[in-house]
Amino acid sequence: AQMALERDYETQREYDTRYRVLSEATRDAFVFVGTRSGRVVDVNPAACALLGASRNDLMGSPIAQEFEGRRRAEFVEALNARALDDTSEPIQAEARRSRTPVKIVPTAFRAAGEPLILCRIDPTETGESVGSGMS
Amino acid sequence: AQMALERDYETQREYDTRYRVLSEATRDAFVFVGTRSGRVVDVNPAACALLGASRNDLMGSPIAQEFEGRRRAEFVEALNARALDDTSEPIQAEARRSRTPVKIVPTAFRAAGEPLILCRIDPTETGESVGSGMS
Repeated sequence: AQMALERDYETQREYDTRYRVLSEATRDAFVFVGTRSGRVVDVNPAACALLGASRNDLMGSPIAQEFEGRRRAEFVEALNARALDDTSEPIQAEARRSRTPVKIVPTAFRAAGEPLILCRIDPTETGESVGSGMS
Repeated sequence: AQMALERDYETQREYDTRYRVLSEATRDAFVFVGTRSGRVVDVNPAACALLGASRNDLMGSPIAQEFEGRRRAEFVEALNARALDDTSEPIQAEARRSRTPVKIVPTAFRAAGEPLILCRIDPTETGESVGSGMS
């Protein structure tokens, strides 16, 4: 039983570390959001740079407040709806602190704990047409 | 003790799942390579597309053979050297199957098991100057 425990611990550390290394090496901005709370569960360095905030500022805070004119419940609902229908358009938004127009591509999943949404936040490329958000 | 075991199992599944979801959601191509074996330990969908091979083809096979004219020992050594000196240039290579010129950005780390190298494989942008490899 002791050996099994140690093996479990090793496997856990393995994925924990791979996860951290991958999240730091990717150039894409990623935020993990708790589906029920709407709060940031984890955020990578690219997302901190894009949102113009430190990891400390973002961890545990409501993701909606990072985007211009978004309310928490409505925003998490929009992320969930888009995650369930990946044929629909990415969510257009503006990062509040950095004033950067972005497109959000959410993926909903459930691991061990609460259901989560992984949001990839892509800066809208220059020259790309952006919806007015008035529709 | 039973509760602690269950909690460990839950934490393990949590990171395992986050790791998998992140690796599928990123647009960057990533390959995890065993430092001692030089073999592919894991590969994400973007890397399969860029290298022009299936996950099954790549898993467990020597990473060097995916690049034109690269020998296993020399290639893993180059990845390691670059990982230890991140001021040096990324490694220029050509993906053998897809004939795509790429730049490889390696990160060396050690989790529970054998030491690993995470390789981010970026397609060389059009118009970007590429070394001749003759120096």
